Amino acid sequence: MTTAPTPLPRVLSGMRPTGALHLGHYHGALKNWLRLQDSHDCFFFVADWHALTTARPQDRAQLERHVYDMVIDWLAAGIDPERTTLFIQSRMPEHAELFTLLAMSTPLSWLERIPSFKDLAEKSPESASYGMLGYPLLQAADILIYKAGAVPVGEDQAAHVEVTREVARRFNHLYGQGQALLPEPQTLLTDTARIAGLDGRKMSKSHGNAIAMRESPESTAEKIRTMPTDPQRARRGDPGEPQRCPVWPLHELYSDAATLDWAAQGCRAAGIGCLDCKQPLIESVQRQQAQWRERADQYLANPKQVHWIVEVGTERARAVARKTLREVRAAMGLAY
Amino acid sequence: MTTAPTPLPRVLSGMRPTGALHLGHYHGALKNWLRLQDSHDCFFFVADWHALTTARPQDRAQLERHVYDMVIDWLAAGIDPERTTLFIQSRMPEHAELFTLLAMSTPLSWLERIPSFKDLAEKSPESASYGMLGYPLLQAADILIYKAGAVPVGEDQAAHVEVTREVARRFNHLYGQGQALLPEPQTLLTDTARIAGLDGRKMSKSHGNAIAMRESPESTAEKIRTMPTDPQRARRGDPGEPQRCPVWPLHELYSDAATLDWAAQGCRAAGIGCLDCKQPLIESVQRQQAQWRERADQYLANPKQVHWIVEVGTERARAVARKTLREVRAAMGLAY
Repeated sequence: MTTAPTPLPRVLSGMRPTGALHLGHYHGALKNWLRLQDSHDCFFFVADWHALTTARPQDRAQLERHVYDMVIDWLAAGIDPERTTLFIQSRMPEHAELFTLLAMSTPLSWLERIPSFKDLAEKSPESASYGMLGYPLLQAADILIYKAGAVPVGEDQAAHVEVTREVARRFNHLYGQGQALLPEPQTLLTDTARIAGLDGRKMSKSHGNAIAMRESPESTAEKIRTMPTDPQRARRGDPGEPQRCPVWPLHELYSDAATLDWAAQGCRAAGIGCLDCKQPLIESVQRQQAQWRERADQYLANPKQVHWIVEVGTERARAVARKTLREVRAAMGLAY
Repeated sequence: MTTAPTPLPRVLSGMRPTGALHLGHYHGALKNWLRLQDSHDCFFFVADWHALTTARPQDRAQLERHVYDMVIDWLAAGIDPERTTLFIQSRMPEHAELFTLLAMSTPLSWLERIPSFKDLAEKSPESASYGMLGYPLLQAADILIYKAGAVPVGEDQAAHVEVTREVARRFNHLYGQGQALLPEPQTLLTDTARIAGLDGRKMSKSHGNAIAMRESPESTAEKIRTMPTDPQRARRGDPGEPQRCPVWPLHELYSDAATLDWAAQGCRAAGIGCLDCKQPLIESVQRQQAQWRERADQYLANPKQVHWIVEVGTERARAVARKTLREVRAAMGLAY
């Protein structure tokens, strides 16, 4: 007698479509998604509604390109559409319906006390929208509609998952009749090592200090070559200290132990120059990018395939979302 | 050459499902709906999501019955499903999607300053939910998704329609590229004569002072007979004043000029007693109720017909809602 395999626990994560992804996205999120594919039933989605809370209306012409550029980067990084469900939030009115239903029983005070909202409301109250205040509740709907067991987040997002848990608990208390109809998701705290960008600040598209996942080899080389290094190593002859150097965290991500030893010793002894130190890093990044670009090129040559992957993922997600909504409506007495 | 008839302007109105309707609903809203059927393309809906902002979870078992009791009362009053589109809000995820999209560009301050919300937030801040704050925005979505040209409201609701107009104006400004994609609805101020209930307060189910549209003749007679009258007419021999009498507004609604003359003169001269005065009123109300009951009985004998009417109305509404949503998504750059 064979038994059916235990289904993998479901995990849900989303990313706002900001266009082509950069190394910061890869190391801060995608790398973790790749690992999760082996151990979880992964639902990854393009959070385009969430992007609207901060996007400028004049950017809407680029939105579609940004969505598909991002999906292609996911696939380029190794996200496997056979195992993983990829979909687009704005294609799922089911999220909006659950958001609307949950809104009725979610105390305003739970949302007003979220740190990210409090910051915003203090700094620029006139720019706070109803949707921004409700952002963690829409996120709760995104998660709960798939009954995700876990949500990978960085520490700065842990408060949002806590709201999701509270929302689920309250719903179950009000409507569950003793059952956890909407299971409380666990927080999968992930190491969101913030990669320094070209100027030492956090790598971010808006800072203009990013290296794109599919940046050309020439541009990548140029960007890393011109990165500032240890400010106390003004001349080639001065000894440096890797811990003070913005390039060092990138080295730690990309170089093997021998290379790191060589670079650290050469820097501290002024035995190598900064350009020498950067050369193996440049080559490592370029090798990784070449692999990504190769995969991306296959998809770029066949855009229909990408649309098809999203289409299949969206329908797969919809089946799950609809089932949950039917249960939620029935529990709330709305099943007519 | 014939020209196509000019389409009637569209009007939208909703009612919360509180169960069987009473004379207050009829005179305060339904009577106006009946008039609008001749001059407008009417969309009337059961606002069951709105009811969730105030309903107690334990009342959910009655919700379905309340929805259909109300629809039957609409039909009994003479709402004509051939000319008018009847539907249920919770069957329209399209409203929730537009609500979610509009939330992103609606300033929080617009909703926080609405008088009904301010009252609530002051009186019992702990009971204010995110959905309650967003109630006028969900209402805006209800209206704008059908591009309703007008909304019949009492004066107490005029502020809500004003929010709808502001929301539409802002959407058109941000995304319309010079076009009024979401037309601003006009306010059709309606005479919402508040009918006094049996105790002189506004007629309301929650006050327990209502006469149902389908109340039995015996119960109606008993309720009107025991209604308080002019408090200064303590004895049969005391002269009374109709303007002080809670029964008088009902008389004005139900009696012809001759009867009103007879009642007013008889009251002021103490020529008739209060029970005498009430008798023609009782008979008029009973006549109207008999007509309603007769129509309702036909529907009660054939519940499938009522479901079918709602089904057809919902699909008719959905076709309009989907078209608007497609335009809205395209304008926001979400048409992928």
